[in-house]
Amino acid sequence: MNRLFFRPEQCGMTKTEAAAQTLSGINPDVQLEPFTMNITTLNGFEAFKSSLMNEDGRSRVDLVLSCVDNYEARMTINQVCLELHQAWMESGVSEDAVSGHIQVVAPGETACFACVPPLVVASGIDERTLKREGVCAASLPTTMGIVAGLLVQNTLKYLLHFGQVTHYLGYSSLQDFFPTMNIKPNPSCPNPLCLKRQKEWLAGENERILAAAENAIEKEEDGPVHAENEWGIEVVTEESIEQSSSREENTVVPSTLPEGLKFEHDIGTEYDAREIKDQAVKPSDDAVEDLLLQLQNLSSS
Amino acid sequence: MNRLFFRPEQCGMTKTEAAAQTLSGINPDVQLEPFTMNITTLNGFEAFKSSLMNEDGRSRVDLVLSCVDNYEARMTINQVCLELHQAWMESGVSEDAVSGHIQVVAPGETACFACVPPLVVASGIDERTLKREGVCAASLPTTMGIVAGLLVQNTLKYLLHFGQVTHYLGYSSLQDFFPTMNIKPNPSCPNPLCLKRQKEWLAGENERILAAAENAIEKEEDGPVHAENEWGIEVVTEESIEQSSSREENTVVPSTLPEGLKFEHDIGTEYDAREIKDQAVKPSDDAVEDLLLQLQNLSSS
Repeated sequence: MNRLFFRPEQCGMTKTEAAAQTLSGINPDVQLEPFTMNITTLNGFEAFKSSLMNEDGRSRVDLVLSCVDNYEARMTINQVCLELHQAWMESGVSEDAVSGHIQVVAPGETACFACVPPLVVASGIDERTLKREGVCAASLPTTMGIVAGLLVQNTLKYLLHFGQVTHYLGYSSLQDFFPTMNIKPNPSCPNPLCLKRQKEWLAGENERILAAAENAIEKEEDGPVHAENEWGIEVVTEESIEQSSSREENTVVPSTLPEGLKFEHDIGTEYDAREIKDQAVKPSDDAVEDLLLQLQNLSSS
Repeated sequence: MNRLFFRPEQCGMTKTEAAAQTLSGINPDVQLEPFTMNITTLNGFEAFKSSLMNEDGRSRVDLVLSCVDNYEARMTINQVCLELHQAWMESGVSEDAVSGHIQVVAPGETACFACVPPLVVASGIDERTLKREGVCAASLPTTMGIVAGLLVQNTLKYLLHFGQVTHYLGYSSLQDFFPTMNIKPNPSCPNPLCLKRQKEWLAGENERILAAAENAIEKEEDGPVHAENEWGIEVVTEESIEQSSSREENTVVPSTLPEGLKFEHDIGTEYDAREIKDQAVKPSDDAVEDLLLQLQNLSSS
């Protein structure tokens, strides 16, 4: 979450306070609940998870949008959402501020954040030279605004069931290049809870097909939802348009990537090393302490 | 320009007043000069042109960004910018609110707005059903925000000379499809001032090549611009990355279009008809009355 929405008089406020104030100012009818915490600590992890839960221990939200700026926080969101069977959308902007991405993570159905190393859109700038210690990362409100817009547009499509929800969408501003792809779950994902969710998803495949068929029959039998239609609103049928050359359905398993995308880490070394480390820790499901140990190992590597 | 930035307390203000107030609130150090007028009237045309001019009759601005919502206003901006040798960027969102585009217009160098009929990105929705009289056009802040972001990103690239300035970029939200192309000037453009600018541009080609070569030599001879570098800022060389499949350099003359794009009007009838009408009016350069006559003819067609 960038600080681009801050106004001078909000100087000194936290990002969450300032965001809540600005959003209330735009639409006072929306209920906002700001939480301010470091979710990568033990207490933060539990507080974050509780904030998403009903009293029955299930998720109380429709979708989680991630706008964090570091790997550990993303891994924490990934773990909480795996535990709660909660779909979430990841977003990010590169340190050189000229590229970014959004990604849908649906436990068991798509790759989780641990399934594949983070992808970055090739921006034409060598990122290593920008990641030197003591040198501040760049920030462009345009890139931030575009990535946020794409994230919320995908959210609307996901929640309101229109258009194609894009599983991964990259953005490289220097070339105006927007790669898309689907990322399947990794059957050897280092996160054991992800493997469990993958099995659950596969087991539910037949049920979902049956339910979808029944739903279609019920809808045909029902009349229109609204008998009165004061504003003359009609549903317009969508024509199927031909798939364009830029819309390639790329399915990714580590080591096969569409042009213009690369892994943030070197696959050959760091990704393999992470797998070994994670296996050495042998985390049990929902074990917070183990997760934290893993995160510490990762951040010190 | 969408009304998405309006806050409840700004109810009753004009869009320009509200925009100026909001922008000042975000950054009080930026000087803003709001003008509120209908630029498609005779007086509005002159007032708009004057607002862009220095006392010597030349343009005083670096770039004009168009955020208008109708054809007549775009044709007016096109005419004023052709008269002032002024580059501008056009932007728009479709009436179904799920697609949009940005376009760079540099007099003589690229197509002017009259060179080719307006392009729309195929959205998969039949627009005719949404353009019925009395039915309000849809508006999605996400689409508006993304198109505005892409417009300003292209502006930064254009003014600050980094990356590739995209001449035409479409956006279809339903498929996350982003077609790009270059649109060359139409040698039989119905606007005679555009034809004049095209000739001037071609005549200046050799001079520009010489000037660029001299400039390159001068730069080599100069030392660094800033002797001191307190923040350790370095220019990072850009690696050339391979052209992606989504980045096709399409050069358009009427009747050849990349996949997923279509003309807003039927080329075979309306576009030809417009040419004939414009020729019948025989407008002379800079003739405001003739332009207005053309616009009236167009809007009644």
